[in-house]
Amino acid sequence: MKTLKKITIVGVGLIGGSFAKGLKKAGLVDEVMGFGQNPQNLQTAIELGVIDSFSLDMAEAVENSDLVFLAVPLGAMKSSLELMKPYLSEHTIITDGGSAKSSVILSALEVFGELPVNFVPGHPIAGKEKSGVTAADEDLYIDHRVILTPNQNTAKASVETVQALWQALGAKVEVMSAQQHDEIFAATSHLPHLLAFSLVDMLNEHEELGDVFQYTAGGFRDFTRIASSDAVMWRDIAIYNSEAIVKWLKNYGVAIEQLTKLVEAKDANALYQLFDEAKRARDKHIVNKS
Amino acid sequence: MKTLKKITIVGVGLIGGSFAKGLKKAGLVDEVMGFGQNPQNLQTAIELGVIDSFSLDMAEAVENSDLVFLAVPLGAMKSSLELMKPYLSEHTIITDGGSAKSSVILSALEVFGELPVNFVPGHPIAGKEKSGVTAADEDLYIDHRVILTPNQNTAKASVETVQALWQALGAKVEVMSAQQHDEIFAATSHLPHLLAFSLVDMLNEHEELGDVFQYTAGGFRDFTRIASSDAVMWRDIAIYNSEAIVKWLKNYGVAIEQLTKLVEAKDANALYQLFDEAKRARDKHIVNKS
Repeated sequence: MKTLKKITIVGVGLIGGSFAKGLKKAGLVDEVMGFGQNPQNLQTAIELGVIDSFSLDMAEAVENSDLVFLAVPLGAMKSSLELMKPYLSEHTIITDGGSAKSSVILSALEVFGELPVNFVPGHPIAGKEKSGVTAADEDLYIDHRVILTPNQNTAKASVETVQALWQALGAKVEVMSAQQHDEIFAATSHLPHLLAFSLVDMLNEHEELGDVFQYTAGGFRDFTRIASSDAVMWRDIAIYNSEAIVKWLKNYGVAIEQLTKLVEAKDANALYQLFDEAKRARDKHIVNKS
Repeated sequence: MKTLKKITIVGVGLIGGSFAKGLKKAGLVDEVMGFGQNPQNLQTAIELGVIDSFSLDMAEAVENSDLVFLAVPLGAMKSSLELMKPYLSEHTIITDGGSAKSSVILSALEVFGELPVNFVPGHPIAGKEKSGVTAADEDLYIDHRVILTPNQNTAKASVETVQALWQALGAKVEVMSAQQHDEIFAATSHLPHLLAFSLVDMLNEHEELGDVFQYTAGGFRDFTRIASSDAVMWRDIAIYNSEAIVKWLKNYGVAIEQLTKLVEAKDANALYQLFDEAKRARDKHIVNKS
């Protein structure tokens, strides 16, 4: 694909920084400019070779940019779009890395009146325990999925450009509707995170159990690892994908009620069937994935 | 401590086999005899050096034994005790590895009328992804907890002997009531296992999500790893610790309802507080544990 002259990373942390680093390594971009509010962080990003330059002024940051990558928290999407709106040129492609897509599209609708034709909402399914630009890694997206959720307004050429950039970073790109994305990730990612937070919280609050964490083993550590995730990020996801999350929390609540009845009734056959089917499904779909 | 002349492992798999192997390595036992129903498995155990000999006859297996270790599934505890009852000598210590203690004690009460003075119920908190005697490992229990749950009938000397044996294997031994044990492990182990099974099952059954597992990432894999556990074992645990598990399932159901309301109300402060407290609790208690 054609080399981009300038791209702008709005929010230079793990996600935005890894995107920039990967594209620089692939030789697909001449200049990467960072935008943010913390000059020290942006200076570090330059020193790490993640970006070439930075600006604290949005006008300068997006001027003549071929592509703007919004890698800010969900709660900052709308204000970032408002800030850049006056300075975007017609040819500038916008994409983002937010993990709830309907809310990003809603923010764009609120700011622009409609989803701009060159706005390609996206969600790279990748992360690390460490966050921040110092953790940025040009190989972060290799073999990871990136979901793009354009709507009927979106220009096909812009989708193709964004797709080609992610593919150049080694990602597997898939296109689906924002609603389908939000349902799937509410069920497979947002729900388990909330369940893990909730379990740790419950155990922490029941003082009659004593210092209960000392008795936990490897299974508990794995199960609750995601409860060590960033509280601000997950607050935002819970709020910005609340509709789909509430739906799956309720579905899960029903499942737990049914399970409770089976345990109460000591229904050996039904319990075995439930556990066995879960085990088979997981072993089939998950175990052999790296 | 004094070397034991003969110990008997009833159920020679990962748990019983690792116990035997460790004691042999520590030079604390002259002869280890295995009992089971599968001569091929017991022959393998001899070839692996886990046991010295075996018998398919319980009379021979427990005759003159200093200690019998019951390492059978929870569902086989009572029948094993019934089978050995006529052949136990007064000085034979009995202990077990069952993960629900009240039910093991109840089985003993049903078979013996009371908990025998030399019966020291126990639960080693250790495991491996692989099971069976081929996975037996003399180092399995190093730095792992073993909970002993004697009652007021239990002879102090028998508790001390069992404790010393586990300590010789490198385990950290703790004594508590069976009820306290069952509550703690219902909350920290049995509950998360059931939650993980339940989540995988729910996703598997909601066909509108499509092949949803392909979109799962590392967090989901960690969260559901325990849903790949043995379905028979977890059916037994659910049944044999049902009372405590039902209590914690219900507590968790209430927590999930409250969380659902917060997400529905998009209550940013309350959600942040919940996630942040969970993260702090987990980071404090778990992360630095090996």
